[in-house]
Amino acid sequence: MARVVVDVMLKPEILDPQGKAVHGALARLGVDGVGDVRQGKRFELEVEGELTDDRLSEVHRIAGTLLSNPVIEDFDVRVEDGA
Amino acid sequence: MARVVVDVMLKPEILDPQGKAVHGALARLGVDGVGDVRQGKRFELEVEGELTDDRLSEVHRIAGTLLSNPVIEDFDVRVEDGA
Repeated sequence: MARVVVDVMLKPEILDPQGKAVHGALARLGVDGVGDVRQGKRFELEVEGELTDDRLSEVHRIAGTLLSNPVIEDFDVRVEDGA
Repeated sequence: MARVVVDVMLKPEILDPQGKAVHGALARLGVDGVGDVRQGKRFELEVEGELTDDRLSEVHRIAGTLLSNPVIEDFDVRVEDGA
C-alpha cells in the first residue's frame, strides 16, 4: 500500500477567483504581508500492492484526465514518504 | 518572498463524498488497484518579506480559522523549498 498525492492547481496565467476571494478576506481581516493566494485541489490515492512504474504511470494518466483539466490546470504527482 | 503551502483535508473519520465519487469513477473507467481516494484543498500563499516565526505562526492561525473548518478538517502548513 502506497499513498500517492496529486496536487492540481490552476495554471499561473488562469484567473483564480477562489484564491482572490481568500486574499481579499485576509486583507479585510487585517492580515497583511500575504501577496497572493492560489487555491487548488489535493487528492490522496491509496494504491494497493507494490507501487511499480506501471502503477505510477497509470496514476499520471488518471491525474491528467480525470483529476485535472489539462487546458487550465497543472498537476503534480508525488509518492508520500513513509506510506 | 516565500511560498507557504497549506493542505486542508477532511479528518479521516469524516465521509468524503468527492473522494468517493472519484473512486467510483476510477472503478467505472476500469482502473483497479486504487483502494481509496480522499479529496482536499491546497492553498499557496505568497508571503511578502522574510518568513519570520511570527509570520509563520500567523499563517498557522489563518489556516486554522479562515482556510479550514477545524471541526471536520485537518490542515498542514509547510514552507515550499526553493521559494
